[in-house]
Amino acid sequence: MAVLFLSTPARAEVFRAAFAEALPDVDFHVGQAPDKLAVRWLVTWTAPPDLAQTYPNLRLIFSIGAGVDQFDQSQIPAHIGIVRMLEPGIAAQMGEYATLATLALHRDLPAYLARQAQGEWQAGENLPAPQRRVGVMGLGQLGLTVIDRLRPFGFDLAGYSRTAKSVEGVTCFTDLNAFLARTDLLICLLPLTADTQGILNAELFARLPHGARLVHVGRGGHLVTQDLLAALDSGQIAAAMLDVTEPEPLPAEHPLWRHPAVIVTPHIASQTSAAEGAAHVIAGIRADLAGTSVPGQIDRQRGY
Amino acid sequence: MAVLFLSTPARAEVFRAAFAEALPDVDFHVGQAPDKLAVRWLVTWTAPPDLAQTYPNLRLIFSIGAGVDQFDQSQIPAHIGIVRMLEPGIAAQMGEYATLATLALHRDLPAYLARQAQGEWQAGENLPAPQRRVGVMGLGQLGLTVIDRLRPFGFDLAGYSRTAKSVEGVTCFTDLNAFLARTDLLICLLPLTADTQGILNAELFARLPHGARLVHVGRGGHLVTQDLLAALDSGQIAAAMLDVTEPEPLPAEHPLWRHPAVIVTPHIASQTSAAEGAAHVIAGIRADLAGTSVPGQIDRQRGY
Repeated sequence: MAVLFLSTPARAEVFRAAFAEALPDVDFHVGQAPDKLAVRWLVTWTAPPDLAQTYPNLRLIFSIGAGVDQFDQSQIPAHIGIVRMLEPGIAAQMGEYATLATLALHRDLPAYLARQAQGEWQAGENLPAPQRRVGVMGLGQLGLTVIDRLRPFGFDLAGYSRTAKSVEGVTCFTDLNAFLARTDLLICLLPLTADTQGILNAELFARLPHGARLVHVGRGGHLVTQDLLAALDSGQIAAAMLDVTEPEPLPAEHPLWRHPAVIVTPHIASQTSAAEGAAHVIAGIRADLAGTSVPGQIDRQRGY
Repeated sequence: MAVLFLSTPARAEVFRAAFAEALPDVDFHVGQAPDKLAVRWLVTWTAPPDLAQTYPNLRLIFSIGAGVDQFDQSQIPAHIGIVRMLEPGIAAQMGEYATLATLALHRDLPAYLARQAQGEWQAGENLPAPQRRVGVMGLGQLGLTVIDRLRPFGFDLAGYSRTAKSVEGVTCFTDLNAFLARTDLLICLLPLTADTQGILNAELFARLPHGARLVHVGRGGHLVTQDLLAALDSGQIAAAMLDVTEPEPLPAEHPLWRHPAVIVTPHIASQTSAAEGAAHVIAGIRADLAGTSVPGQIDRQRGY
């Protein structure tokens, strides 16, 4: 029984030490496995081609980072399970970042930064939080953590998800248009799937109230950048804070960097801790060996 | 019985309407009072000279904004009470701003903004919140609200006040040096008094750990700006977010505007709502008429 690890050397050392202590009977290989038949579990960011042929006894693929959208699931046979990275640090960091971005846009930080660049001391008027209608798209583990962090500020909170959810103190929608029509500050935390690719586009922006604000912490592939730039220039979108872009890294000459109403950070909202990631993968392998459900294993039909 | 109101016309209209409804027997005068002997209460930002002589029956001065440091208390006779502005919006807005600033410095936003200006996509490493030792100077109503908002993020929280306090989940200090030695991210929310004037100076910065961060939401008079600029340039202070400066407004050519590790906003952390401010003053006058304690009345000995 072996696990094959395909990620950075620094992470590999943390995982190797954790496996030696927790699962001494499982062989731990980095980069390649001497006996391909022994490989039951793969820990990786991207899936190598011809997986099933190369590793005929492969049972589970563990993503080394948040999300599973980097896998071409059509190329992974249905009998192989896919497991998302779940570790408490990811949600905690996302809670921090999304709160930072929400407060930054709520309190007009992009406008104040633009004035700072001009040496201009000019106060605007603060809007009370109960009058700011914040909407979270995506009510998974991360979306719920973000809502928990925002709740104490007293925003008027709503959530959107494809399947009906119930969250305390939050108006939950499955009707996207109704959700957008009442949302002054949109936080995108959707998973990236075929259905959500390009969802942040001109049509969606037009359904928000004029002057809405956007926090994007999903994936670059959700966003049609040209549509955002046009919506910013027309005033339909007043300001945006983006942690993900298309492409990544964003080229130095890209107009998003220079737009005065946009703050861009280089995909740092959540970073996976190697130690906590190893604990998650070890728990998953133990569950697989015990025949119980594996934390983070996705629904292959739904794709997330 | 009359109240004399000395503030902006827009605020005056809100106060006049609220007084007409709540205290119809009290005369409400803006700018000047026809009968100076009738003036019992003054609502103002700054105290006119010769107060006691001009208004011999004056009982209370209500500050129209947060803080009472703008009054020269030595010029106000001890029998005249001074009342701070207390309204729930002030604390709520301060909670938002201080959380925004704390998360911005915790998550290295000034560095990312400087990279954005260069079109540079370069991620740093996030520090888990429990490893960030945040310290709040000043444990009054505002300091406690800020602590409440920061608590869910899991920071290692401490507080400093001159008199011993006890706050759940927060290590409370009355020893300033011990507090500074353990504080990676300092939030100044002190009242401005003769004792705290210029407290944010080179000596204080030197007692913080190297690379500490500063959120300043007290008063411009707390901060020795040249000492902050020197500490930023030496790396003793890694970054700062300032809502108050000395002087205000900050002149266009001031170096604080241009420092890459500094975010400056034009004293917008908390703004007083006229409607809620009027309700606070009305409640204070009713308490004075009833002979009960006036919400927000300061201790003239202590000065705040």
